[in-house]
Amino acid sequence: MQTQTQNRQFKLAARPVGMPKRSDWDLVTEPVREVGEGEVSVRTLYLSLDPAMRGWMNDVRSYVPPVGIGEVMRAFGAGRVTASRHPGFTVGDYVTGTLGVQEYAVMDGAQLTRADVAAVPLTAHVSALGMTGMTAYFGLLDVGRPEAGQTVVVSGAAGAVGTVVGQIAKIKGCRVVGIAGGAEKCRYVVDELGFDAAVDYKSENVVKALREHCPRGIDVYFDNVGGEILDACLANLARRARIVICGAISQYNSTTGVRGPSNYMTLLVTRSRMEGFLVFDYADRYPEAAREMARWMQEGRLKSQEEIVDGFETFPETLLMLFRGENVGKLMLRVGADD
Amino acid sequence: MQTQTQNRQFKLAARPVGMPKRSDWDLVTEPVREVGEGEVSVRTLYLSLDPAMRGWMNDVRSYVPPVGIGEVMRAFGAGRVTASRHPGFTVGDYVTGTLGVQEYAVMDGAQLTRADVAAVPLTAHVSALGMTGMTAYFGLLDVGRPEAGQTVVVSGAAGAVGTVVGQIAKIKGCRVVGIAGGAEKCRYVVDELGFDAAVDYKSENVVKALREHCPRGIDVYFDNVGGEILDACLANLARRARIVICGAISQYNSTTGVRGPSNYMTLLVTRSRMEGFLVFDYADRYPEAAREMARWMQEGRLKSQEEIVDGFETFPETLLMLFRGENVGKLMLRVGADD
Repeated sequence: MQTQTQNRQFKLAARPVGMPKRSDWDLVTEPVREVGEGEVSVRTLYLSLDPAMRGWMNDVRSYVPPVGIGEVMRAFGAGRVTASRHPGFTVGDYVTGTLGVQEYAVMDGAQLTRADVAAVPLTAHVSALGMTGMTAYFGLLDVGRPEAGQTVVVSGAAGAVGTVVGQIAKIKGCRVVGIAGGAEKCRYVVDELGFDAAVDYKSENVVKALREHCPRGIDVYFDNVGGEILDACLANLARRARIVICGAISQYNSTTGVRGPSNYMTLLVTRSRMEGFLVFDYADRYPEAAREMARWMQEGRLKSQEEIVDGFETFPETLLMLFRGENVGKLMLRVGADD
Repeated sequence: MQTQTQNRQFKLAARPVGMPKRSDWDLVTEPVREVGEGEVSVRTLYLSLDPAMRGWMNDVRSYVPPVGIGEVMRAFGAGRVTASRHPGFTVGDYVTGTLGVQEYAVMDGAQLTRADVAAVPLTAHVSALGMTGMTAYFGLLDVGRPEAGQTVVVSGAAGAVGTVVGQIAKIKGCRVVGIAGGAEKCRYVVDELGFDAAVDYKSENVVKALREHCPRGIDVYFDNVGGEILDACLANLARRARIVICGAISQYNSTTGVRGPSNYMTLLVTRSRMEGFLVFDYADRYPEAAREMARWMQEGRLKSQEEIVDGFETFPETLLMLFRGENVGKLMLRVGADD
């Protein structure tokens, strides 16, 4: 395995207004620093690109501190150990963790997780078995609490979390309707992932299409997008429905403020609830979920759909694919070859 | 007890746009009809005026059908039996039920409830022991689930439901902050009802005032008003907070559409939920709640604050007091003298 002494990093240069621009980033090269006691050096192979990253770039108090100007951008990823002074890791191990947008991460070994690539490929540890899969699993099952026979609607259906949410809902015996942008994505979630129906929000009236596909109303709506689609789902709730607030990608680059769901009073009419969650709260249950998800993958019931883009230096442009709806499945950056 | 043969009624003449106008009503006089088998004739003494009545006037599908054009306006109220062919009632009994905005209601006895005026006055059966009190009780305790020591915020704090919510929260050992319009209402809820603090939304920055009065954040927010105040509360949630959606009086007469809560993504950051409810779902538990509330009243721990306006013919104007924030406590119309 190759090692280098130089480490390329993307640091946040400015707080973006609207869509992040190239000039909001500094691409810098620094020497890889020495591994201290308890630390591990990891060569980054894959970086996870997530909508939540946009929020971390804003200077607002949230569930994690914002990335500071001049700091390496925060990112989850997978890589291989190149040096270790932590007893849990040896050179060559595959690991996942919050590596940051950089070619090498030297960090506390306690913050890394070993990835078993014999069972499932390394990329799946970033997607279906990573934060993405955990988000889908706990958001759907713990917050949404779908029952067999109920109707589950998921937006961003062809995205990283949406593809997993819909497949888990199918495994649990639900009727699953996806909302996605474009005929190709809609075809994909129905034909390849087994959703019962899909709504193309770019060409259909979402309120009407949901009424048609969910004749008994929506029991669980897993919201990745916010905006008009959230309102369309609020207009189609079944009684005692659960709306899982996972994200609001349609609003993250807004320069005119967030659009609140004006149909929220249907929560009263239908006696429903809308609830937010953070996957980090379920950290002690990740292993349990990962075991179950790995089994579903091995049984062929759960696909880890990935869209992998090559080239560390493309990070600023590749990230924007998320907000333009250009990815199908989990968007990842391939940073280094696993040689 | 006087009885008449003529029955004055307010019927809905037109669907209002914005604030209901006189011309949206027809005041008609009809003969009191004969009591059929199983029916009871009730002389209306008090009518409950409720924000929800505005919603019933719109031609939209909701938890109850809209009042039809030409129908007697729906209203809850209290009165005295003038004739009965139902075994559960005899002439002179005090009762409550959905009497409608009319001087006499002839209706199925099964839809009436006997009111024990020896224990608490008849007006309290319309306010703290009526729908108002039930709404406060189940909304706060079953949906909000406050724990002793937690912070409960209620808007419309000096209104019918708000006054009861705040007092129950105090009985349960919570810190209670009310939001109301004007210094007089704020003084009232603190000095007369024992709230810990009050915010005057007409003269204060609500976000800042809540931050000051709720230093550990809001654990339960009981929302009667919607709009900007809902957003201000969303900006001040504690972790795992519960927002109880009871009403949105600030939005009911809007002619430009409902304003959705643009701060709803704090539900995610704080892992909180926003939940709607309808008091009718708790009908089988009303007696239990009414017994507990009556005991609190007899112990002097719960006041039934009422604002009673005289004169059946004032109904159209008196109803508007709700939307102008002119009432303190439960707004009622005194229709007849109990002679």
